[in-house]
Amino acid sequence: MIVRIAELEIDPQYLREYTALLSEEIEASIALEPGVLMLHAVSIKGSGETIRILEAYADQAAYESHLGTPHFLKYKTLTANMVRSLALLETDPICLSTKPGFSYGGPRVRLEK
Amino acid sequence: MIVRIAELEIDPQYLREYTALLSEEIEASIALEPGVLMLHAVSIKGSGETIRILEAYADQAAYESHLGTPHFLKYKTLTANMVRSLALLETDPICLSTKPGFSYGGPRVRLEK
Repeated sequence: MIVRIAELEIDPQYLREYTALLSEEIEASIALEPGVLMLHAVSIKGSGETIRILEAYADQAAYESHLGTPHFLKYKTLTANMVRSLALLETDPICLSTKPGFSYGGPRVRLEK
Repeated sequence: MIVRIAELEIDPQYLREYTALLSEEIEASIALEPGVLMLHAVSIKGSGETIRILEAYADQAAYESHLGTPHFLKYKTLTANMVRSLALLETDPICLSTKPGFSYGGPRVRLEK
């Protein structure tokens, strides 16, 4: 499994558009890609243009496949001029635990077990 | 909902013991507390003593209740001398999405839907 933290700074004038595009991309990735396990995006309170995304992929192949999907390419293309900086921090997971059925972000396509 | 990022630096000599205690505390919190929605702990690769935890609680009451539970108090007491620094970053969630049944960290008590 690959787990990382993406640290982004967004141009404040595009923040609303950026978060909508990011949410759409996250929901599509979790719904459609078996190897995308978790995508959790938050902004730092009082500094809404500072975004952190905790990401988990089954393996390197799943991540590379993700980069070629239509929903990721749409997100990447449409947000290219909105992102001022992007850093990826590789991590080692210690313990990742979620209540069954937990999600946040409004209606989305749901995968059933 | 309350979502935050905890940033910790651990004394390297206690790292193994610390991560075991943290994992135990996370698993108990998710299994036993209705208002603890998500606890995801990772260490930064190449800097194992740098820990990030993404936390979600149903509301302030759930968080305060969490602070008084036996498993949290055990963790807090036993790790007090292992934690060199702790910062809590308040966040606004954008989109939090996980594959059904996703978890990492070995066997644990599971809540069934």
